[in-house]
Amino acid sequence: LGKKPFAKERLFDLTPPGIATGLAWTSMGGATLYIECVRIEGATENNVTLKVTGQLGDVMKESTDIALSYARNYMKQLDPSSKFFDACSLHMHVPEGATPKDGPSAGCTMVTALLSLALNRSIRQHVAMTGEVTLTGQVLPVGGIREKTIAAKRAGVKDIILPDGNRKDWDELPDHVSKDITPHFAQHYDDVYRICFTEGSSEGIEKEG
Amino acid sequence: LGKKPFAKERLFDLTPPGIATGLAWTSMGGATLYIECVRIEGATENNVTLKVTGQLGDVMKESTDIALSYARNYMKQLDPSSKFFDACSLHMHVPEGATPKDGPSAGCTMVTALLSLALNRSIRQHVAMTGEVTLTGQVLPVGGIREKTIAAKRAGVKDIILPDGNRKDWDELPDHVSKDITPHFAQHYDDVYRICFTEGSSEGIEKEG
Amino acid sequence: LGKKPFAKERLFDLTPPGIATGLAWTSMGGATLYIECVRIEGATENNVTLKVTGQLGDVMKESTDIALSYARNYMKQLDPSSKFFDACSLHMHVPEGATPKDGPSAGCTMVTALLSLALNRSIRQHVAMTGEVTLTGQVLPVGGIREKTIAAKRAGVKDIILPDGNRKDWDELPDHVSKDITPHFAQHYDDVYRICFTEGSSEGIEKEG
Repeated sequence: LGKKPFAKERLFDLTPPGIATGLAWTSMGGATLYIECVRIEGATENNVTLKVTGQLGDVMKESTDIALSYARNYMKQLDPSSKFFDACSLHMHVPEGATPKDGPSAGCTMVTALLSLALNRSIRQHVAMTGEVTLTGQVLPVGGIREKTIAAKRAGVKDIILPDGNRKDWDELPDHVSKDITPHFAQHYDDVYRICFTEGSSEGIEKEG
Repeated sequence: LGKKPFAKERLFDLTPPGIATGLAWTSMGGATLYIECVRIEGATENNVTLKVTGQLGDVMKESTDIALSYARNYMKQLDPSSKFFDACSLHMHVPEGATPKDGPSAGCTMVTALLSLALNRSIRQHVAMTGEVTLTGQVLPVGGIREKTIAAKRAGVKDIILPDGNRKDWDELPDHVSKDITPHFAQHYDDVYRICFTEGSSEGIEKEG
Repeated sequence: LGKKPFAKERLFDLTPPGIATGLAWTSMGGATLYIECVRIEGATENNVTLKVTGQLGDVMKESTDIALSYARNYMKQLDPSSKFFDACSLHMHVPEGATPKDGPSAGCTMVTALLSLALNRSIRQHVAMTGEVTLTGQVLPVGGIREKTIAAKRAGVKDIILPDGNRKDWDELPDHVSKDITPHFAQHYDDVYRICFTEGSSEGIEKEG
């Protein structure tokens, strides 16, 4: 495989709130990719800022803006009384810091990491996901399904969330690639949310803030 | 056709408020293009911001500014008591996130998406449109009428709104392209508004906020 | 003439307040050019902003600043009680959105469009103008008088306002170009104002705000 694009197959044994596992696709093959979000004290009133680090390219930076707008509106629907996103300084980082990354396919992962932080809930463990998200929650197909699936298994992922538009790519995977991992297909972000935060919630870890 | 510029012919079965369907013209042929607008909580008083994503070029970014100015003034005429645009954080996205887009021809679509959001009304279904808009609502002709019409039909569009200055281009379309789709010609944005929000309103979907 | 730089010879049958007709000179020949100004609700107190769109080059962008400063002071002279420019968000657009434009020769047109908006009065119909304006209202000569005159006639213009420094260029025009159009020469912006807002005012259209 040449130089591994990311140093560790699996960065977290248990992902705490604010983190979601995505899947990247590079010229070196697939790789897991973690979206880390934290909230920083000291926001100005009525002001929301999102600092982004991790050598993200232009398309991926726009994805962070889309993810923030979508997560803010989604949180208002989940819990109209939540003031989490009303005034806050957020920071989103995508390790490893020196590896350039780009593309829109981490959109769903970013929304999920932000909601996990806002809800102060870990997402279902051993889940990884890939999929572009639009400003109204449509989940769009992405590339590299084969490489991403291989990387997901290498990192111990049991459930993989893919865009509904990628069903064909999944069906074309050889058995030795697709076995031992359960695919979930998402048309809208609601599907991603249900899998990450509702289904199999007995596996979830809730942590008090 | 080579690589399809946009992954899905039709992203929405029913477009919710804040979304309007445009038509793009690329070297790959025509394509439907969705303008998504959302309002984000927490605007600073008396301040209007519009975040724009979707890899838009300079001309298309200017189109978003023109669309916002025009939609704000139009909304004041429609409903002088509306405070929707007085202080708000808006976000406009044009999926897919990784596809570079440019040109002024989405102007009418942008105004329509913003008004749909402000009115909290879905626009008439199965309508797509193309046309540059000026700051005082003049609708200017655009390119690619043939390719855009083909793409519109492929996406299930029944009514297409074209600039009045493109009548000639429509008339020159072969019958197999122009059949099964009804053209509407617009000189001024008022014509676009009437078609999207008034005529055939029985087909519209009104949603409470 | 090759590709027409602007799609329609004449965008407006009657120009509403906030619009003035200029004349551009491109490698393709002359063309009419419209300056559109609108005022947007919701300005912050004591703050004047001017958004500018239409792919203007650096010199033309500076012209918009000069025009705004000059129009504000001119308005204070016309009507010391006017508060129009005291706190406002203005937007000036120069269609067509995708056509790059530059140069200082739209200065007089910009001042006129801003004053038309501030006064809420349409300017005299069928007038087009060209001329650089300085911060104290001097009108400076410009290029392309022949091409601009041809374009003005093509668009139905009856009166053309030219810088006094361009008299020689007018006198050198062949008869078939200069006939059926009345030239007016301006040394100072006062001359432009008089022609647009005072003389022939019976032709003007006044609209209540």
